[in-house]
Amino acid sequence: MSTEQDDRERQLVERVVASFDGTPDPRLKELMQALTRHLHAFVREVRLTEPEWQRAIEFLTATGHITDDRRQEFILLSDVLGLSMQTVTVNNEAYRDATEATVFGPFFVEDAPRIPLGGDIAGGAPGEPCWVEGVVTDTSGQPVPDARIEVWEADDDGFYDVQYGDSRVAARGRLRTGPDGAYRFWAITPTPYPIPHDGPVGRLLDATGRSPMRASHLHFMVEAPGLRTLVTHIFVRGDSRLAADSVFGVRDSLVRDFHPQPAGTPTPDGRDLGSRSWSRVRFDIVLAPS
Amino acid sequence: MSTEQDDRERQLVERVVASFDGTPDPRLKELMQALTRHLHAFVREVRLTEPEWQRAIEFLTATGHITDDRRQEFILLSDVLGLSMQTVTVNNEAYRDATEATVFGPFFVEDAPRIPLGGDIAGGAPGEPCWVEGVVTDTSGQPVPDARIEVWEADDDGFYDVQYGDSRVAARGRLRTGPDGAYRFWAITPTPYPIPHDGPVGRLLDATGRSPMRASHLHFMVEAPGLRTLVTHIFVRGDSRLAADSVFGVRDSLVRDFHPQPAGTPTPDGRDLGSRSWSRVRFDIVLAPS
Repeated sequence: MSTEQDDRERQLVERVVASFDGTPDPRLKELMQALTRHLHAFVREVRLTEPEWQRAIEFLTATGHITDDRRQEFILLSDVLGLSMQTVTVNNEAYRDATEATVFGPFFVEDAPRIPLGGDIAGGAPGEPCWVEGVVTDTSGQPVPDARIEVWEADDDGFYDVQYGDSRVAARGRLRTGPDGAYRFWAITPTPYPIPHDGPVGRLLDATGRSPMRASHLHFMVEAPGLRTLVTHIFVRGDSRLAADSVFGVRDSLVRDFHPQPAGTPTPDGRDLGSRSWSRVRFDIVLAPS
Repeated sequence: MSTEQDDRERQLVERVVASFDGTPDPRLKELMQALTRHLHAFVREVRLTEPEWQRAIEFLTATGHITDDRRQEFILLSDVLGLSMQTVTVNNEAYRDATEATVFGPFFVEDAPRIPLGGDIAGGAPGEPCWVEGVVTDTSGQPVPDARIEVWEADDDGFYDVQYGDSRVAARGRLRTGPDGAYRFWAITPTPYPIPHDGPVGRLLDATGRSPMRASHLHFMVEAPGLRTLVTHIFVRGDSRLAADSVFGVRDSLVRDFHPQPAGTPTPDGRDLGSRSWSRVRFDIVLAPS
């Protein structure tokens, strides 16, 4: 590239950056100036062609047009570019042995059913029963009593209750740790499912040889006074999709052994599962200070 | 930042980059991997918060929802971030003294009226008459006969014909250079106007203390066999908006003297303008090889 061409491109970047100098809010100014530098660096590095720019405009337009109150394609786009996970990572700095966070996802619902310790969140959702237990502590190892735990997951058909469009509430619940910080409940063994892939983001995954499948997981949100709220999942060791989770939510530290239990194996709480197999998993949770 | 935190963030970037390794089209792979690196660098550098990420999602959603067949808010966004102009700059490399390119804009129309040399493109558009003349040459100084010149501009009220929603055709035309490469036509003296600013992009400009106004300009597109098609504008020297053009289209080399001519000044072609003032401008055009 000639010096003159290089100068033209650099001067343009500086003019755009300077155009935000008068932004009253200093944080907005910082964001817009940094965004300008990074987006221009992209265009310059790849020597973006005008037809490619046009395709990008068309892609964003289609993404906007499929987005409505029930479908958020821009969040999907952020997810499959790993930007949602990077934002989570930036905002949940590593702190000693505190449990790692991962993406929140679009399927959390307020006011999930309250269940007692040892209760069942399945609510009729199809799936193999799964016994989940653990203890919540702080980073000094002290148990955290009465911590609020929200759990939610997809059913065996790969759908969250809210995706059915009826008013069912299933495979989600809220409970609290006991005086010893321990918790336990019945859920269903997580199974893999695809993110919505019939729109522009699905076509992008297709064009780039990527799968829309998420690794099997169970969502947790854990809150307690004075401690950092943890939003995370646990994943199933051995799931072939761990290395190719479509939204990059997997952390090695969040992969757990879901031990299969043949039909007839006695259950921890004496529940009679008849001829059904079940599984069990332990997930001890460490909360950072807030 | 701790080494562990830094590692987590970097490893995430590498995982996302690697997810595109299987992209069949090598150019798409290059684009997605570079986009991933630059967007993650932005999120990491500014330590994007989760509420800011949410605002970005909402902004893109609103931008998508206002976009339709007549309104392209994503192009406006690209324009006000200087990305349209950077794409133009990257794709029109500096070549000797070839005339510089600038943004195409959304208001070009195919099949504009053909006018003879010395004809009038105004077509009834309100505005002060302006005599435009020049010569088209290649970079060796040879005149380019029969080059196709498309010109278009806003009227004195700041609107292009297509913005009125009726079927008027005004302030646009197509002509060809003569055997000596020269051209001349009547237009109207350019005046400043705002880009559409009643949507999300307008709110962004407002929040960042920027004006939606474009510097006054007249659009040109010049085509001739064997030469690089030139899409450009000329700007009016002395226009206070030259330094703050909302889409960063101004190049110093494209600013021209529009000489004011008091009413009664004889016109170059003997046209009788009665009691009206007029202006004249010279714009010699140099086309790079294609």
